[in-house]
Amino acid sequence: MDNLEIIKEIAISSSTKIVLLVIDGLGGLPNPETGKTELETANTPNLDRLAAKGICGLADPVAPGITPGSAPGHLALFGYDPVSFNIGRGVLEAIGIDFDLQSEDVAARGNFCTVDEMGLVNDRRAGRLSNEKCIELCRLLDGRLIDGVKIFVSPVREHRFAAVFRGESLALEVSNSDPLRTGIAPKSITALNSEANKLASVANEFIAQAKATLAEHYPANMVLLRGFSRDPRLPTMNEIYKLKPAAIASYPMYRGLAKLAGMEILRTGATIEDEFMTLKQSYANYDFFFLHIKPADNAGEDGDFDRRVRIFEQIDNALPELMRLEPDVIVVTGDHSTPATLKGHSWHPVPVLLYSKWCRPDRVSEFSEPACVSGGLGRFPATQIMPLAMANALKLTKFGA
Amino acid sequence: MDNLEIIKEIAISSSTKIVLLVIDGLGGLPNPETGKTELETANTPNLDRLAAKGICGLADPVAPGITPGSAPGHLALFGYDPVSFNIGRGVLEAIGIDFDLQSEDVAARGNFCTVDEMGLVNDRRAGRLSNEKCIELCRLLDGRLIDGVKIFVSPVREHRFAAVFRGESLALEVSNSDPLRTGIAPKSITALNSEANKLASVANEFIAQAKATLAEHYPANMVLLRGFSRDPRLPTMNEIYKLKPAAIASYPMYRGLAKLAGMEILRTGATIEDEFMTLKQSYANYDFFFLHIKPADNAGEDGDFDRRVRIFEQIDNALPELMRLEPDVIVVTGDHSTPATLKGHSWHPVPVLLYSKWCRPDRVSEFSEPACVSGGLGRFPATQIMPLAMANALKLTKFGA
Repeated sequence: MDNLEIIKEIAISSSTKIVLLVIDGLGGLPNPETGKTELETANTPNLDRLAAKGICGLADPVAPGITPGSAPGHLALFGYDPVSFNIGRGVLEAIGIDFDLQSEDVAARGNFCTVDEMGLVNDRRAGRLSNEKCIELCRLLDGRLIDGVKIFVSPVREHRFAAVFRGESLALEVSNSDPLRTGIAPKSITALNSEANKLASVANEFIAQAKATLAEHYPANMVLLRGFSRDPRLPTMNEIYKLKPAAIASYPMYRGLAKLAGMEILRTGATIEDEFMTLKQSYANYDFFFLHIKPADNAGEDGDFDRRVRIFEQIDNALPELMRLEPDVIVVTGDHSTPATLKGHSWHPVPVLLYSKWCRPDRVSEFSEPACVSGGLGRFPATQIMPLAMANALKLTKFGA
Repeated sequence: MDNLEIIKEIAISSSTKIVLLVIDGLGGLPNPETGKTELETANTPNLDRLAAKGICGLADPVAPGITPGSAPGHLALFGYDPVSFNIGRGVLEAIGIDFDLQSEDVAARGNFCTVDEMGLVNDRRAGRLSNEKCIELCRLLDGRLIDGVKIFVSPVREHRFAAVFRGESLALEVSNSDPLRTGIAPKSITALNSEANKLASVANEFIAQAKATLAEHYPANMVLLRGFSRDPRLPTMNEIYKLKPAAIASYPMYRGLAKLAGMEILRTGATIEDEFMTLKQSYANYDFFFLHIKPADNAGEDGDFDRRVRIFEQIDNALPELMRLEPDVIVVTGDHSTPATLKGHSWHPVPVLLYSKWCRPDRVSEFSEPACVSGGLGRFPATQIMPLAMANALKLTKFGA
């Protein structure tokens, strides 16, 4: 019996409310000049006050030393083991552009690429097209019907697109056409079991048609497909936690991940203030809110320490708005660290702050990485955040007699 | 997918270098008179400075409360789960004397013992022979050829020897001859499956010949064999981590364990200074160094608190030599604790210090057991040390998209 099964057995529905505030890329590293991290540098009186009243710790999204992508980082926060529930590349591309993926759809990651007169791939990214060109070419390929299967082709960015196959009885066990290197021809897609013959033949025919259509569009004169996958059909958060969960996120990837977990996706504006406003407006209708704030991660990827500091201060400013709603449980954390000095996701554990009337406060009175080291939650796997939030919302009954 | 499989998938080769400095039996307990452990008592300014710049914690080699032998302690440090990868007694004896074990060899632990005129064992250790006597008797038995199988008999210490069976198609599933108590006869070795018939018959014939040869050598007039085992064929550290690893160890057991993990074994002198010199001389040729320092463990086994203190000070003195090489990642830890007050290995977790440009420093500024309690690494399984070292060396890519 794994953790989710235990939770499923002891979870109860109740009127208490949980807000999970996810600050993307929250964790940082010290500025070499000051020795202080972004979060330590930021003036965050509201978060510090909440840390003093609550309990803190450091969470590992996957495991110590492992740098998570956005999908494993979020799955862990929702309580799913991010290693067992790995989400396919195709599905991630589709949900990352807000594609309304149906449960039977098969999604693939696509590249526009360049092949030479011999048909050998000489640029897997077709010289990185402009986004405009990508949109234009996708329009040429979108909406074809092959053998009863409809194929949606949607631009992602530059040379990237998502191809979604919608039709009956599509088994998805097929190989990739993308050879993942240059100098050889795109591979024919083959079925890895007999049920997958149909998808393989439809995909090959689609590629043949695409090649014909793109012949005059050098350097983007061919397509490569990989990562055929489908909605992983996670047990929903309602099934596991008996929650009525909602997601507030301005970036499509996170709305998509929340949808995979069975959350209702709320319409929201793009700013931090917009998102807090959406929370306020929908507060009566749900008992769990995943509120996702993106810009701290972008600033980290850009290596912009000061911008991260300002974003944390902006979030701190908005916090009283959330406090006024008086949620029974507030969790403030991130899906991974994105230190400005590393300009990317990193393996460092993520600060966690949990506040409820029933938490056992520790002696931490500042929300920062070094302060969280001494927190009462200790260092723990991020998959334990949801059970802790549920317990603090008095939504878990006793295990065993 | 377990942790090693994830690491294998995301590890990349790069020019950064990792030094894993293992101080055997590092952890201690307070001196009842002063209340300070050996490490707290020792004057170690260099280690303390490194602790201040780095991140500290306490690692459990196997699990809390479990006292590890040298093999599980080291396997955990190399990243292998010491419970799944258990190494047979015979293999440990053989590698502990630098025997060049081949991958198909079967090794057994041997005892010289005493049997009475009825053939019943009355001393399983033959009165604990002198080492000289052990060497002499091994010479009488070494090198026999039975049914195409060559048997190497090599002295270990006192009544102990290693017997290695080398021949074709030797399956090792056989029972022990050692009854593990006195008053009964040595057991006949039996095959536990039909493939193992050959080894059972060769081993029984070897025992019969040994009995005849030893008849005049009372009290060592018989041998007992147990722990038939073979190279466990661990995935190598190169396969898992894509490292080019080297081991510097003056004791054969640790060279043997490093060899099982696929490290190259460097020739070195016996002192701490010799070992650091070997590191310096070979530094250009590898990207991972396991540097093993033995005497703190011996001093612990001897119950010699002060000697342990002096050894820690000696290591601290040598540390600047290592620092001058500017490794990208330095880990200082032990394979287990050996408190002088307990005169043996113990279950207490082991101090860990990790330094890299990318570690997230905590507020620890002293390398000691009580200080490490507050470290940013927290308390964690020793198997996570390698993933952390790899991450800090920027040798792990992202997991999931």
